Amino acid sequence: MSSLLEQEIYSQPEVITHLLEQETEHITNVVAQLPPFDYVLIAARGSSDHAATYAKYAWPIMAGYPIALAAPSLHTLYHKAPHMRNALVVGISQSGQSPDIVAVLEEGKRQGRPTLAITNDGSSPLATTADHVIELHAGRERSVAATKTYTAQLAVMMLFAAAWSGNPQRMTELQRLPEIMRQTLEMSAPLAQRAERYRYMDQCVVIGRGYNYATAFEFGLKLKELTYVMATSYSSADFRHGPIATVDTGLPAFLVAPRDATYDDMLDLARDLKQRGAELLVISEEQEILSQATTPLALPPAVPEWLSPITAILPGQVLALHLTLAKGLDPDVPRGLQKVTRTL
Amino acid sequence: MSSLLEQEIYSQPEVITHLLEQETEHITNVVAQLPPFDYVLIAARGSSDHAATYAKYAWPIMAGYPIALAAPSLHTLYHKAPHMRNALVVGISQSGQSPDIVAVLEEGKRQGRPTLAITNDGSSPLATTADHVIELHAGRERSVAATKTYTAQLAVMMLFAAAWSGNPQRMTELQRLPEIMRQTLEMSAPLAQRAERYRYMDQCVVIGRGYNYATAFEFGLKLKELTYVMATSYSSADFRHGPIATVDTGLPAFLVAPRDATYDDMLDLARDLKQRGAELLVISEEQEILSQATTPLALPPAVPEWLSPITAILPGQVLALHLTLAKGLDPDVPRGLQKVTRTL
Repeated sequence: MSSLLEQEIYSQPEVITHLLEQETEHITNVVAQLPPFDYVLIAARGSSDHAATYAKYAWPIMAGYPIALAAPSLHTLYHKAPHMRNALVVGISQSGQSPDIVAVLEEGKRQGRPTLAITNDGSSPLATTADHVIELHAGRERSVAATKTYTAQLAVMMLFAAAWSGNPQRMTELQRLPEIMRQTLEMSAPLAQRAERYRYMDQCVVIGRGYNYATAFEFGLKLKELTYVMATSYSSADFRHGPIATVDTGLPAFLVAPRDATYDDMLDLARDLKQRGAELLVISEEQEILSQATTPLALPPAVPEWLSPITAILPGQVLALHLTLAKGLDPDVPRGLQKVTRTL
Repeated sequence: MSSLLEQEIYSQPEVITHLLEQETEHITNVVAQLPPFDYVLIAARGSSDHAATYAKYAWPIMAGYPIALAAPSLHTLYHKAPHMRNALVVGISQSGQSPDIVAVLEEGKRQGRPTLAITNDGSSPLATTADHVIELHAGRERSVAATKTYTAQLAVMMLFAAAWSGNPQRMTELQRLPEIMRQTLEMSAPLAQRAERYRYMDQCVVIGRGYNYATAFEFGLKLKELTYVMATSYSSADFRHGPIATVDTGLPAFLVAPRDATYDDMLDLARDLKQRGAELLVISEEQEILSQATTPLALPPAVPEWLSPITAILPGQVLALHLTLAKGLDPDVPRGLQKVTRTL
């Protein structure tokens, strides 16, 4: 029987179909009800933090709002909450349980700011704290590593971006998500064999930029949680400011490089890395950059750039699953992790 | 003859003395002249980004201002700058040359927001763009890896925190910095031998939280740039949300854990990591957590918590220097790096 992780990975097109049905109108209404704000303060950890990182690009680009990622320890350990004048305060948590994320929303409420919870549990402490709750409708996630709740969180961030953009075409583009996700998962089937190549890899770098900066971090986290590989994630720009010195012959470099505004920069980096002797794995729909790779992971063509993170993470999830199996590890219960992490 | 890197590391107490003399009054004046703002948007990369990360804690805790770290590619690649209503816009760059950082300040100016440049070059593009310029007065940094300009940037962030706090005791505490830095460098002398233990280490994790989240990232970057070790940095909370699965017997875990509000959390993590078989290197002034470590790096006692990042990074710099030498590498010119990194 297949693992829970595998079932949850392949359930994602259906989860997103369901989410779009349940939340499109609701999110449009929430957007209409929110009072004016100047910027968005988002509190999140783990995979949810990567959904927040996606919003750090999508919300300014599509709606002009700057994003500040919260430092929850200000609230829980230093007990010195910043003022939140003119902020919209957002908490993202699959379980809605982590006390540090709840603390940021409570403070927003105390200061009279609008608060928004994005969670898979509508009766969680995070949900009961917030003015507005967006549920993920993903069904219980039973595997410890988040997959379907991550893409559902991304879809929520995308729905807000589309609603704020005021451009009806964005909502139309969103409806195509389940179909292109299904296509991407089909195209990822060869990874079941290909994963073997990485059986004895003990470290790698994962690089993405802009919209797919989030994907680089989420892909890296899946590799760490599931396969215990020391995967370090970077933007291509940050990577050039120092860490590129770690590149040696044979270093596995995983590039998330769909065609978008950052593509030329990622292509430059791919060529530079190859010259330095790195071995490339590339996620893209562009033959030009795929041809640089030892392992090309092709994406379906013509996905709008703002939606690419939800397809680009899928081959990453599938690779992490099969590498876990190739190592004889349990994909559902990684060593030393629990499903709900309660940090202060 | 000793390397430029070594000379620059040991020049830091003097650099900070000079900076405090030159900039204390200037920064107090700038603070008095700034128009009101609700939050601070900071653009920076590499070590300068770690100074910004320090401000993400110090400025809210001591002055109540929330911090947003900019995503420069919004400006340079997506050409969709967010609005910056009610923001103070800050750029930090040793060279003041990186076009992406300059672009964020230019946009702030275009939108009529107050802008501030923190740089070692008062005639750089970043400086000429900004309303207010804080120079580091560090002298030319000739080694590629930043050391004295990083601690000088931290000191500038500390001067702003002190000025905003309105508490004169903070300014008095700041004046002690050069002396406690001198003491810390003396206490780090045994690292010249101790570094040998890590000669064949190829990966490690570096963990700190709150004020010293920045230190964990800067220490990790020095290890990457200088010794090519795959050093991955985390907050203790983020580490528990997944990456802790990578811990296996013998994994080197470097903890930055001076006595502050995050200390108990770091002590818990130290015990947990030891139980999972990790080998600890600990930077702290507290015997309790130092006693968990295979390599304890003692700090001078009674440094105020908000100043601890400027002492806690010093043993990290010294260790990175001696590990570089133990590997027979050139500490002044790391493989594939240049002093000025121009990213778009």
